Amino acid sequence: MSDAPSESAIHARVAAGFRQQAVMATIGASLRSVAPGAVEIELPYRADLCQQDGFLHAGIVTAIVDSACGFAAFTLMPEGARVLSVEFKINFLAPAVGDTFIARGKVARAGRTITVCTGEVAALSQDGERTIALMQATMMAVYPAR
Amino acid sequence: MSDAPSESAIHARVAAGFRQQAVMATIGASLRSVAPGAVEIELPYRADLCQQDGFLHAGIVTAIVDSACGFAAFTLMPEGARVLSVEFKINFLAPAVGDTFIARGKVARAGRTITVCTGEVAALSQDGERTIALMQATMMAVYPAR
Amino acid sequence: MSDAPSESAIHARVAAGFRQQAVMATIGASLRSVAPGAVEIELPYRADLCQQDGFLHAGIVTAIVDSACGFAAFTLMPEGARVLSVEFKINFLAPAVGDTFIARGKVARAGRTITVCTGEVAALSQDGERTIALMQATMMAVYPAR
Amino acid sequence: MSDAPSESAIHARVAAGFRQQAVMATIGASLRSVAPGAVEIELPYRADLCQQDGFLHAGIVTAIVDSACGFAAFTLMPEGARVLSVEFKINFLAPAVGDTFIARGKVARAGRTITVCTGEVAALSQDGERTIALMQATMMAVYPAR
Repeated sequence: MSDAPSESAIHARVAAGFRQQAVMATIGASLRSVAPGAVEIELPYRADLCQQDGFLHAGIVTAIVDSACGFAAFTLMPEGARVLSVEFKINFLAPAVGDTFIARGKVARAGRTITVCTGEVAALSQDGERTIALMQATMMAVYPAR
Repeated sequence: MSDAPSESAIHARVAAGFRQQAVMATIGASLRSVAPGAVEIELPYRADLCQQDGFLHAGIVTAIVDSACGFAAFTLMPEGARVLSVEFKINFLAPAVGDTFIARGKVARAGRTITVCTGEVAALSQDGERTIALMQATMMAVYPAR
Repeated sequence: MSDAPSESAIHARVAAGFRQQAVMATIGASLRSVAPGAVEIELPYRADLCQQDGFLHAGIVTAIVDSACGFAAFTLMPEGARVLSVEFKINFLAPAVGDTFIARGKVARAGRTITVCTGEVAALSQDGERTIALMQATMMAVYPAR
Repeated sequence: MSDAPSESAIHARVAAGFRQQAVMATIGASLRSVAPGAVEIELPYRADLCQQDGFLHAGIVTAIVDSACGFAAFTLMPEGARVLSVEFKINFLAPAVGDTFIARGKVARAGRTITVCTGEVAALSQDGERTIALMQATMMAVYPAR
């Protein structure tokens, strides 16, 4: 559409939303990339975010990929909409060990109200990249009351 | 069974596991109750754990109920077993607003390898208690190599 | 509310919807009970609905509990609304063996657009009743275009 | 590995398993393709498999993609293993309308006990192909007791 927002406008909207997610700063996550329908979030390993075996806690793995999926959905929503997680499901494929974790969210189908996303989390170490989690998520656009 | 561990032994095992989950201390969560097949974790509201609307971030809601489910499964596992999250699915029923959040994990079916749990998160405020999330989770027992 | 539909009106609406689900007749399922926010569907065992081990196929187990959840959500929707499954997740707790299967759907939270349900399937045999599956489902009300 | 089964041996194993899933013949589904870690199942539209709006019932959509995922997992399991669905989650992206439905199951990570798959269902019509459902599934290998 001729009036689709530019990529830089989309990046600015997501960056603003990301800064408002206080928990992202608390855990040390940062925005890695933004494209229409696709967002990446990066999180360096931190021992204070782990579970009993020294793996990143499943909830933290989930937090970054939920945000990546939510913002991916958000990139395709009209101006003024807010995004909420309706639900998601996540499988953990391998222990969350690595130097850095990259969460990738991608829109599978965008609708006016409901957007379905797929997400994955990769662990990066000197041995390369390994997928450690897969998510399938349902996001909802919330429009301001008129 | 005559050789089932006592409730106080179960509590001690879970409390030890909980202390090893560094992320629980990082976010300010504490163990609220432990019974065979049922564990509760409590988290006071903290603005630095929120998303853009000032609601507790879905990943943090998930973290406490994943741990509650994992430890609930753990209470029924044999001595020496460790517990890992295979996967879970969570629905968010209402915005995560409140003074305190209580995550409740319960075993629906315990098996030697696979244990299925249900979980919920309640938000407590001066208006009372409100269920804000429902989880269905698959946990796995990992036994030490012999 | 004074204008809430009567229980018999609710039963009639669900029974009409059930008759329109051709697949229910195809597999031999019937409506067992209807109450506001709760519906049960019954399915006798049939060898031609099984998988390779002689257990009822996971898809058939899913079909009856998805319908039970959908109709449970439907009981609380306003006149004129239709119901669609947005998504669901189901855990299989035990092999689907038995003489009869009862799927129970229940509303956990009803909203104008999104309704969240929990469901379970029980297998009945001479040994009694056994829960074989647990579902958590997201249903959506679709309103006629005005 | 030198002793990995040949593609034709894999195809024969899956075809034999498929024939034993009586429900597949009951609904009219057939095996479309088999490769290591990837299986496709095809189902022509049938009015007697529909829900109230004339869309293929969510349970039937689920049945074919659950089987596609299960057999995809099965292709990578050792001789003698059986496969069971531990759980799955499925999102419905669009109404299940079309002449033919193709369910595609793919292994995301294969383990000795647990295999995680992703699946999708496409609807084919004269307008082309459209993805109508996405699945994320956990399969388990069951080994004969020794």
